[in-house]
Amino acid sequence: METVDTEYFTFAQPPHELELENGERLGPVRVAYETYGELNQQRSNAILLLHALSGDAHAAGFHAHDKKPGWWDNMVGPEKAFDTDRYFVICSNALGGCSGTTGPSSLNPKTGREYALEFPIIGISDMVNVQRQLLDHLGIEKLLSVAGGSMGGMQALQWLVSYPDRLHSAILIATAAKHSPQQIAFDEVGRQAIMADPHWKDGHYYGGPLPAKGLSVARMVGHITYMSELSMSEKFGRRIGHYERRSRFSNGFEVEEYLHDRGDNFVKRFDANSYLYITKAMDSFDISGGKDLSEVFRRITAKVLVLSFKSDWLYPSSQSLELVRAFKRARVDTTYCEIDSTYGHDAFLLEVETETHLIRHFLENVSREKKAVGSQGMVTARIKTRGH
Amino acid sequence: METVDTEYFTFAQPPHELELENGERLGPVRVAYETYGELNQQRSNAILLLHALSGDAHAAGFHAHDKKPGWWDNMVGPEKAFDTDRYFVICSNALGGCSGTTGPSSLNPKTGREYALEFPIIGISDMVNVQRQLLDHLGIEKLLSVAGGSMGGMQALQWLVSYPDRLHSAILIATAAKHSPQQIAFDEVGRQAIMADPHWKDGHYYGGPLPAKGLSVARMVGHITYMSELSMSEKFGRRIGHYERRSRFSNGFEVEEYLHDRGDNFVKRFDANSYLYITKAMDSFDISGGKDLSEVFRRITAKVLVLSFKSDWLYPSSQSLELVRAFKRARVDTTYCEIDSTYGHDAFLLEVETETHLIRHFLENVSREKKAVGSQGMVTARIKTRGH
Repeated sequence: METVDTEYFTFAQPPHELELENGERLGPVRVAYETYGELNQQRSNAILLLHALSGDAHAAGFHAHDKKPGWWDNMVGPEKAFDTDRYFVICSNALGGCSGTTGPSSLNPKTGREYALEFPIIGISDMVNVQRQLLDHLGIEKLLSVAGGSMGGMQALQWLVSYPDRLHSAILIATAAKHSPQQIAFDEVGRQAIMADPHWKDGHYYGGPLPAKGLSVARMVGHITYMSELSMSEKFGRRIGHYERRSRFSNGFEVEEYLHDRGDNFVKRFDANSYLYITKAMDSFDISGGKDLSEVFRRITAKVLVLSFKSDWLYPSSQSLELVRAFKRARVDTTYCEIDSTYGHDAFLLEVETETHLIRHFLENVSREKKAVGSQGMVTARIKTRGH
Repeated sequence: METVDTEYFTFAQPPHELELENGERLGPVRVAYETYGELNQQRSNAILLLHALSGDAHAAGFHAHDKKPGWWDNMVGPEKAFDTDRYFVICSNALGGCSGTTGPSSLNPKTGREYALEFPIIGISDMVNVQRQLLDHLGIEKLLSVAGGSMGGMQALQWLVSYPDRLHSAILIATAAKHSPQQIAFDEVGRQAIMADPHWKDGHYYGGPLPAKGLSVARMVGHITYMSELSMSEKFGRRIGHYERRSRFSNGFEVEEYLHDRGDNFVKRFDANSYLYITKAMDSFDISGGKDLSEVFRRITAKVLVLSFKSDWLYPSSQSLELVRAFKRARVDTTYCEIDSTYGHDAFLLEVETETHLIRHFLENVSREKKAVGSQGMVTARIKTRGH
């Protein structure tokens, strides 16, 4: 079996640092990314995948010696939703993360130590600006599509608004124009759990014991919100598991052990400070910037596919519908589908068959129209339509 | 203004300890309770109120020097839902709690120190058995009603099953026959947050610093589940508050400060070990005991009123409906109403007007039927009906 490798691109060397959303500067910036499939001669078949809160650049395939493939492997490959026989698929680790791209656990060149809380506050648009630099580096002028779920969908939205001329389409899955107070509340609980851990030490825990208990609690809260009540009931019911109880206050329910297990695994692979920075970026994200959404979307010429899941109560369909309505008002060519799934927010990683069907079809249409009209023609046509 | 006082009743003096659900013994047991209104000569107008996870015996009125009344004051008093001109209303603090009734923060007579984790594991039926002892002490043979929301509803259910001959009616509000895995999951997150706090010290924190951060996180999680997405959006939206930010990772949203505030207040009044013991009791509660619910309900002769709230996603209406269907199959005289509220689980404390209307009417009917038939007659009639 062929294996994939993570690649790295470094830019924004001082004094040419990246200017961030909040005006601060950051450099150098390293991006970890992977690619699957071949870029065609016209450099026109590239699709950028955008991962969620805890994802990384390793979307598909196997690293050497790995037993588990990338996080969206069932969607990326030959004849899959993102068909690597036809498309050149790129996935990069988000800014602020901890899987190869610069984040709070990276070394601060000014101090020679990890940034920790000296890392600047970042926003979703900063993640997208880093991705745009990567595309410039790869020589890709215009993407066939950007696609992502959850926080990945926020980045896709930001792409549509920040760089409308650099993409033919966008696929927004289980996402929102902005977090609701409930989403903010869950994130704040996770952050407090981390910061309450005495090992967190105001972020300066590198080299010492990790704030593992706090990060684990944050992840446990997260996993409850990723599932639906029904999917939890179907998966666990009130079955008692056969494992050593974590405390005398556990009743031994399988659902308890599932959450602990998810928490334990997360601590091994994720940086607590990244969790703080990235959830803050998600909470402060508001693509409207205080304006009417349809105004903000007016420059978009890309085709858009919006997917949501019926049982997703973290990013409920109402949030997708808010986007769809604004796209329609802005005359953006938009397709919306609410997928009838019981999996909750996790559905975007699990409803592979339905998503594959919808995404393959959507990408084929985008490719076909692009060839028929040419992007410049499309823009003109659309501007004319607007005059009606 | 007249004030109310908490009273105390102590029983189960060794060697006559209370035998618990799990076979262990506990004694002495002290119960904190309050009463409102007057017990009539027939001792037939008593209603027992059962509080939720964090409640106490102080349901109504003002303690001397207090600015805030009891937790259900808008429901208990002259001409209120539980009309103290007509009924004798009793509320006691639950076993395992921390507001006057014996719990893990009480002194263990065997050691002279707080029980902490030497306190035995308790169940909802143990709370109910303590209440029954209190009624014996007060000389009340048969209650006109028991009423409670959330965990209070679980206790009311347990009353119906454990002591069917000792009550004429029960009012179950926003409750369940058993916790779903989602409810268990939220409780387990709260417990883990407490136990992850280094000040928790395996429960032996009395006299030293409290596990305040952990308990605060647990309460924050709780408060998210008590509200609906809509009520959070209406109450807070994405408004930024004017207060000092708790950390650089707060975005200053009002919803964040609300949760912190709830957490801070909770720490001042609630014992972390009580939180552990009581949530475990709720999670392990299953009124069916593994049997068919309608079998378990067959001995019930009381009239039952079941109330749920449309936006309550913690104790969703489906859980109330499961109870209602089983009551109906068991030929229990049951009235069910799903109240159209946006307040989520908190609605049981907030939808005062609707609840008042329904509960007053229900209690009037119960009083009237009791006078007309007499309880023994009612039982006979019901048994005959069953034969059809």
